[in-house]
Amino acid sequence: MGRITARRRVLRVRRDGTAAARADLLAVEEPLEVRVDGRPLSVTMRTPGDDLELCLGFLVAEGILAADSDVVSAAHSSGSAVDVRLAEHLPPLPEDLSRRVTTTSACGLCGKTSLAAVHTTSRFRTDTDPIRVDAQFLLDLPDRLRERQTAFDKTGGLHAAGLFDARTGELLTVREDVGRHNAVDKVVGWALTQQRLPLSGTVLQVSGRASYELVLKAAMAGIPVLSAVSAPSSMAAELAVDHGITLAGFTRGDSMVLYSREDRVLLEHSPARPPR
Amino acid sequence: MGRITARRRVLRVRRDGTAAARADLLAVEEPLEVRVDGRPLSVTMRTPGDDLELCLGFLVAEGILAADSDVVSAAHSSGSAVDVRLAEHLPPLPEDLSRRVTTTSACGLCGKTSLAAVHTTSRFRTDTDPIRVDAQFLLDLPDRLRERQTAFDKTGGLHAAGLFDARTGELLTVREDVGRHNAVDKVVGWALTQQRLPLSGTVLQVSGRASYELVLKAAMAGIPVLSAVSAPSSMAAELAVDHGITLAGFTRGDSMVLYSREDRVLLEHSPARPPR
Repeated sequence: MGRITARRRVLRVRRDGTAAARADLLAVEEPLEVRVDGRPLSVTMRTPGDDLELCLGFLVAEGILAADSDVVSAAHSSGSAVDVRLAEHLPPLPEDLSRRVTTTSACGLCGKTSLAAVHTTSRFRTDTDPIRVDAQFLLDLPDRLRERQTAFDKTGGLHAAGLFDARTGELLTVREDVGRHNAVDKVVGWALTQQRLPLSGTVLQVSGRASYELVLKAAMAGIPVLSAVSAPSSMAAELAVDHGITLAGFTRGDSMVLYSREDRVLLEHSPARPPR
Repeated sequence: MGRITARRRVLRVRRDGTAAARADLLAVEEPLEVRVDGRPLSVTMRTPGDDLELCLGFLVAEGILAADSDVVSAAHSSGSAVDVRLAEHLPPLPEDLSRRVTTTSACGLCGKTSLAAVHTTSRFRTDTDPIRVDAQFLLDLPDRLRERQTAFDKTGGLHAAGLFDARTGELLTVREDVGRHNAVDKVVGWALTQQRLPLSGTVLQVSGRASYELVLKAAMAGIPVLSAVSAPSSMAAELAVDHGITLAGFTRGDSMVLYSREDRVLLEHSPARPPR
């Protein structure tokens, strides 16, 4: 596990014209190269730590991995690169994979081809997941996520993703990163190593907004419910509809907005359920 | 200019168990392919609108363009692609450019190679810019940026970048996008078309945090002062030091934190200046 914060000398300046030097903690951001069978696929700027999970989760999102048994080994091949060796039962990777991956990658880059591709490559179905969740359970998740964030309060610069079991309510894991997409990759990579894919019956709570890429990652990991503290984009909502994922946004304290598959969310006073 | 918001039917759920259907506006996020002389270089997920500026600014950040005269034409070659034709005086693009660009791209993906590359490819110097700015001027920028954001209040899902003239205090331009990096690319692309590169004597104010990539983009456009509403990463601060860029973070209301080149920021009660 690398350093996730770095101390720097900074100057705090106030409107009244005063200034004070102090030591400040910053979120560390460093490049990591993902290699598959020795071939470089992608480079991501990430918060050091959980590097193997990050790479494994990234490869799940890219449709290359779907189970722990797909991986022979995952190890640092240098300080800033992780090499993942694939099991022999997997089909050979296409020659143009590097190009395909970099243009459809984790961090906002992606093309229409990837939108088409996910429909064919996702090995898990999210639309048929029978899970139901209480609205109040969802509304509490941002606070539960924040309680478990270790680095955020120190730096103010990290995103978090938390995975919850919708049946027991249990928090399964939390990961933080300078990149929202990386935090989600780390969660999914953790799930792969725990042989928990597909993540049916779970809820993924993320800080920040719900972009297209996060919905894509949820779909590739089989996560049926995705909740974000901030707004989704139009394409995120469309992809959630396509995959039958319940997408909640603006989940904050007393209310949230549902963009898709709201049938999975149980209101306390829902006609479908007698009031408690 | 494409649509930047899309209307969707959503369900607002409150903690008391009530729910109300309503129409909501979401930020539109669609892929755009950047082509140079017909060759596809990169695909970015962006808010439609200012597509040409986005592509031109992206190519400035990649070290390919530095002036309006470097561009013969920039035009949509399809609804989701822009082709930029380069002037003949530019050196031929390297064969591996697509790979280099996608792995060092605008949206968080980048490698150590790019960190080394920017030192050699940036055609503008930011460290020698003699501009000085009042602390109070900087502290006011987030509010001035928010006042000019058109889509944010409607969707809550857009980032903004605003360029200010540090001498006159004038707001030069504001751009919004689902991606922070795209908003900055649009600003820089605008500056290129206005023959304003390098952007010496300017301040770039961004919503959200200051990542490594934003400092890189500022360096490539010759912007000497970058201010962010939220935290910078450690690598962002290091790059700002390397390029002699003044980096301010947590710029909010009554205070901000300076991470580099604080000599450019004038305090009202600074010993260097008599109190007014």
